[in-house]
Amino acid sequence: MATTADITAMRRAIALAARGLGSTSPNPVVGCVITDASGRTVGEGHHQRAGGPHAEVNALRAAAGRARGATAYVTLEPCNHTGRTGPCAQALIEAGVQRVVHAVSDPTPQATGGADTLRAAGVRVEHGLLGAEAEAGNTAWLTSVRLGRPHVSWKYAATLDGRIAALDRSSRWITSPESRADVHRLRAECDAVVVGSGTARADDPHLAVRGIPGAVQPLRVVIDTEGTAVRPGARVLDDAAPTLIAVADDVHPVLPEAIRLPRGERGVSLPALLDALQQRGVRSVLLEGGPTLAGAFAALGAIDKVIGYLAPVLLGAGPTALADAGISTIGEALRLDMTETVRIGPDLRITAIPSTAPKER
Amino acid sequence: MATTADITAMRRAIALAARGLGSTSPNPVVGCVITDASGRTVGEGHHQRAGGPHAEVNALRAAAGRARGATAYVTLEPCNHTGRTGPCAQALIEAGVQRVVHAVSDPTPQATGGADTLRAAGVRVEHGLLGAEAEAGNTAWLTSVRLGRPHVSWKYAATLDGRIAALDRSSRWITSPESRADVHRLRAECDAVVVGSGTARADDPHLAVRGIPGAVQPLRVVIDTEGTAVRPGARVLDDAAPTLIAVADDVHPVLPEAIRLPRGERGVSLPALLDALQQRGVRSVLLEGGPTLAGAFAALGAIDKVIGYLAPVLLGAGPTALADAGISTIGEALRLDMTETVRIGPDLRITAIPSTAPKER
Repeated sequence: MATTADITAMRRAIALAARGLGSTSPNPVVGCVITDASGRTVGEGHHQRAGGPHAEVNALRAAAGRARGATAYVTLEPCNHTGRTGPCAQALIEAGVQRVVHAVSDPTPQATGGADTLRAAGVRVEHGLLGAEAEAGNTAWLTSVRLGRPHVSWKYAATLDGRIAALDRSSRWITSPESRADVHRLRAECDAVVVGSGTARADDPHLAVRGIPGAVQPLRVVIDTEGTAVRPGARVLDDAAPTLIAVADDVHPVLPEAIRLPRGERGVSLPALLDALQQRGVRSVLLEGGPTLAGAFAALGAIDKVIGYLAPVLLGAGPTALADAGISTIGEALRLDMTETVRIGPDLRITAIPSTAPKER
Repeated sequence: MATTADITAMRRAIALAARGLGSTSPNPVVGCVITDASGRTVGEGHHQRAGGPHAEVNALRAAAGRARGATAYVTLEPCNHTGRTGPCAQALIEAGVQRVVHAVSDPTPQATGGADTLRAAGVRVEHGLLGAEAEAGNTAWLTSVRLGRPHVSWKYAATLDGRIAALDRSSRWITSPESRADVHRLRAECDAVVVGSGTARADDPHLAVRGIPGAVQPLRVVIDTEGTAVRPGARVLDDAAPTLIAVADDVHPVLPEAIRLPRGERGVSLPALLDALQQRGVRSVLLEGGPTLAGAFAALGAIDKVIGYLAPVLLGAGPTALADAGISTIGEALRLDMTETVRIGPDLRITAIPSTAPKER
């Protein structure tokens, strides 16, 4: 039975983990809280970046000698392998931690087994506390482990009647400055931002994070199948963040940022693109493309989260947020569950995830 | 300075007033609370139906002798005229009420003057307490008085991407049973439900209130310009509620429910229709028509409230909630303020009102 103290400590560990969003890939975000026998917190830590110390190690350093006989709360099962850093299970044992509570088991073959190692050394191990919350906080990494592709969040900004622009394509601005600032937070929390050639051509977007001190810039990705939408001098090619231009493999790319990928049904194969991103350590993608690109991801079953900014505006004409998702009748509709609704300035941000697990490719 | 007791009593009066929504037209909804010198509530009442006693009279009856020296909180200035019932100002004076607090002044020439009458009789009169809340509760009636036409609420049910049906026009069901039940509450609170010929033809809707015991049925209105959409045997013609079919004045109507109205730009003139409804005592209209009819009302500046039921569903194709509102560029967008967002089962209900006062015709 988890006590209130257990829940408080794990919730804190989950909050600590979230500080790593956008900077730990290809690793998960992890938070750790260590409490002594009286329940007092003696150490806290989170995984800050790939190659840096794991959350447990940071928390143990903070706790120093006070870890002996303590309880460690970790959002993910402590790792059992030596990668760029040593195994955390061993570090916890050596520090004299008596009890380890972890929220989610490690699903990776190379890192799993930490709980067994701890138990073999006489440490009391419990798991599952606030499992759903911890899983939600690590959803990008867990999705990438389970599906073998990055987690995809589709972001759109629309009117109450679903328009992303007016009839004449004007769209500055539908949503508020508050909503546009919030999108920079989304970018900072993901590994890559993806748009298609239509958006590149129409908006010449910059796609980097602005206004968030210390943010790790995401990889900027433009799907430019024919290699004609991103021209030298495009804003996305500046040095504010790394950039990748995906062109078809029969196109002769002119930009050094270009990678060639096989064609799919409607342009560059999206599974091939997701593979290429996964290979580069991208675990979370923010899809900021237009309706056609979003429709292609939806048709592929490759939208794991929807983040809609709805402005209290009506247009009655103009392009809609989503197109060509391969759905022709109501029975085929993509059904979601709303997980959050928040007022952002005058707008509303709705977050939703597919009602059923996303299809595997 | 209003005391907490004043605010509590007026808030209660506003809640009482709301009980009359849908059954008082052409009168306003009004609530009244009477408290004695110690602040104890000695009488409550609301206006239940046109021709029935006013809120003040109901509250005075409940208070009986205890009204002497008491304070009466009324959501609207007590009336000063003899209509189907006597003037309330006089009734309050005769009962010995010492102080009257009203939230909103009566804007009608025939009923105004109640506050002056009370003051002349030595009653202390204060006004404006919770004025905005009371005004919001009476918005339909106040709109009809100020603009000379009924208040129009446009209700739609759509996916997150703004679709009201799939590509093949299938739409059962986009929103949840909870949302559909909530729409019956909306119908019960208004005087008339309006659809166009497209909806009549496609859905053969019934438009009456179901599932709300004691609800007053609204007038069912179908705008059927050519007189061809509603045929004998249509569900809207049953005896569950009164029905009115608006046809163009050059059409020979076959149904006894038909009224002939001049043509406007896109079918029956909507100002003429609103006039006809106003003449019949309709103060609030729930617009449940399709995108074209909603667009025509929007183009006319005759949407006073938007109530959107958003389902966590994506379609990527199919008709959108609003069409042809006469808006071609972002600067002309119809800007609103969200006044409420509520989860209704798995869906979200968003309520919004125009940012600026609606244009007068």
